[in-house]
Amino acid sequence: MSEFSIGVDLGGTNLRTAVIDSNGQMLDKLAGTTDLTEGPERVVDDIVHGIETLRDKYSTHRMTGVGIGVPGFIRMAEGYIVGSHNLPVLNHYPIRDAIEKRLETPVILENDANAAALGEKWIGAGRDVDDLVLLTLGTGIGGGIVYKGRVMHGAVGMAGELGHITVVPNGNPCGCGNRGCLEKHASATAIESMANLMALGENLTSKQVHDLALAGEERAIRIFQSMGEALGIGIATLVNTFNFPLYLMSGGALAAWDFFYPTLEAEVRARSFTYRNAETRIGKALLGSEAGLFGAAYLPFQAQSVTRS
Amino acid sequence: MSEFSIGVDLGGTNLRTAVIDSNGQMLDKLAGTTDLTEGPERVVDDIVHGIETLRDKYSTHRMTGVGIGVPGFIRMAEGYIVGSHNLPVLNHYPIRDAIEKRLETPVILENDANAAALGEKWIGAGRDVDDLVLLTLGTGIGGGIVYKGRVMHGAVGMAGELGHITVVPNGNPCGCGNRGCLEKHASATAIESMANLMALGENLTSKQVHDLALAGEERAIRIFQSMGEALGIGIATLVNTFNFPLYLMSGGALAAWDFFYPTLEAEVRARSFTYRNAETRIGKALLGSEAGLFGAAYLPFQAQSVTRS
Repeated sequence: MSEFSIGVDLGGTNLRTAVIDSNGQMLDKLAGTTDLTEGPERVVDDIVHGIETLRDKYSTHRMTGVGIGVPGFIRMAEGYIVGSHNLPVLNHYPIRDAIEKRLETPVILENDANAAALGEKWIGAGRDVDDLVLLTLGTGIGGGIVYKGRVMHGAVGMAGELGHITVVPNGNPCGCGNRGCLEKHASATAIESMANLMALGENLTSKQVHDLALAGEERAIRIFQSMGEALGIGIATLVNTFNFPLYLMSGGALAAWDFFYPTLEAEVRARSFTYRNAETRIGKALLGSEAGLFGAAYLPFQAQSVTRS
Repeated sequence: MSEFSIGVDLGGTNLRTAVIDSNGQMLDKLAGTTDLTEGPERVVDDIVHGIETLRDKYSTHRMTGVGIGVPGFIRMAEGYIVGSHNLPVLNHYPIRDAIEKRLETPVILENDANAAALGEKWIGAGRDVDDLVLLTLGTGIGGGIVYKGRVMHGAVGMAGELGHITVVPNGNPCGCGNRGCLEKHASATAIESMANLMALGENLTSKQVHDLALAGEERAIRIFQSMGEALGIGIATLVNTFNFPLYLMSGGALAAWDFFYPTLEAEVRARSFTYRNAETRIGKALLGSEAGLFGAAYLPFQAQSVTRS
């Protein structure tokens, strides 16, 4: 290993920090929890402590930089997040600059789904393409767009908020102000809501709904078909918009792939001339929950290669 | 003028050819009609004849190249179009290579809405930005995406088919195989269909529906509100996807702007956190029906600057 960078995945619950070399090998990882009870300074303390611990351990090698994936809408220029429901104490807090100052190292802040998309492009399911879209299927749905090998940010860094594209114009209300957002019709939360609406059981988790589907329960099967329909409408719009070669999904919901994918694929096929006429793959991401760590760690390497070229 | 290029706009009805210099000045223009009755060779003949006429006239200057905007899904590598309803005789015909061979000059083929988007970026309403989306509102709806100053093509050239994004999942059927395509709910054709459905008159044109709205006819006003709602749903999805600073519309329907824009803007505001939190302009294109000529002519200049840099 000649050099390494540090990838951080800061979630509402978990804080993970990894040492990753320029070939995409993960050499070390710290897994902790995010403590939001004492304000943003405490979160910064914990992040800095993890990075310093690993930097000291690998001090015989050059550290290229630090990348941090966070949930929420990113303002790239300012280096903070807005509208994050998972990390409310960090909204508008200058987290990037605070960490840079403590570490005396450049820090790159990135939306977590963008980081995961970049990780998949670097060493995951998107290794062989330059352009891809990733949807992260969790309690919400995040999106990341990689074009010509780089994350698309848009004007301020909010591009790729694909969980909030409208798939049902008069559909379920969303905290973002919209109705019928993709994530209100295809996330784990949406599955659980549908299970409640169909009186399938008492406050079932999405995993329990999946177990019922596996056991042959028709209503549970229909719930995943409905999820597939919503994803299919959304992905067809993405295919018609981007004509990218690859659309990936990640997250715990992949376990139910066989229940939702046939409906999803049929929707995309019906709704996209481009899908039917240009080679287009829709598939599973490969890196699981570590995609964001890899993508975050890749950011400093990518920034360095731009500076050098 | 040191050098010029030729922009061609090949439509189902009109064939226009223009001489445009590297500063974006249109020096000359030929306006003719597209003759589809004698097969693709006749179309090529007519295009080549127009270009040769202008090239000879300006033979004391250097011709950088030729750009041609055409309706339909483009396959960039092969240099032909597929799925064009306006130019069925040209589907799968190697039009680019046929013209290149005749002219002995490099020819760049581009989707007409992509060309119009690039024209607006070059010398139109998008001069001050690098990233924009254009929707061309006509009998159908075309789309063009410009990112970092260049047209986004996707894997084979079909990116930006924004008239076919779904805005009403179970909406009106479309020739593309989808239901509820934006262009089936917000084009001139859609306005005319709605007028029929509402028994507003005998086979009214969209202009006549506009005249009725101007006269205070409530049903006509509601038709444009419905159009605005569909456009708003679509544009909100684009804002959430791209976070670009600018979304433009062009076409005859701009005359009815005051009837559809308030509903459109209200939809985007409600449906996009990004719109409410990042500076985003939605406005009218400036170049009218000449945007595609300018964009087509810009393509050879842009290709040249890449080669040189």
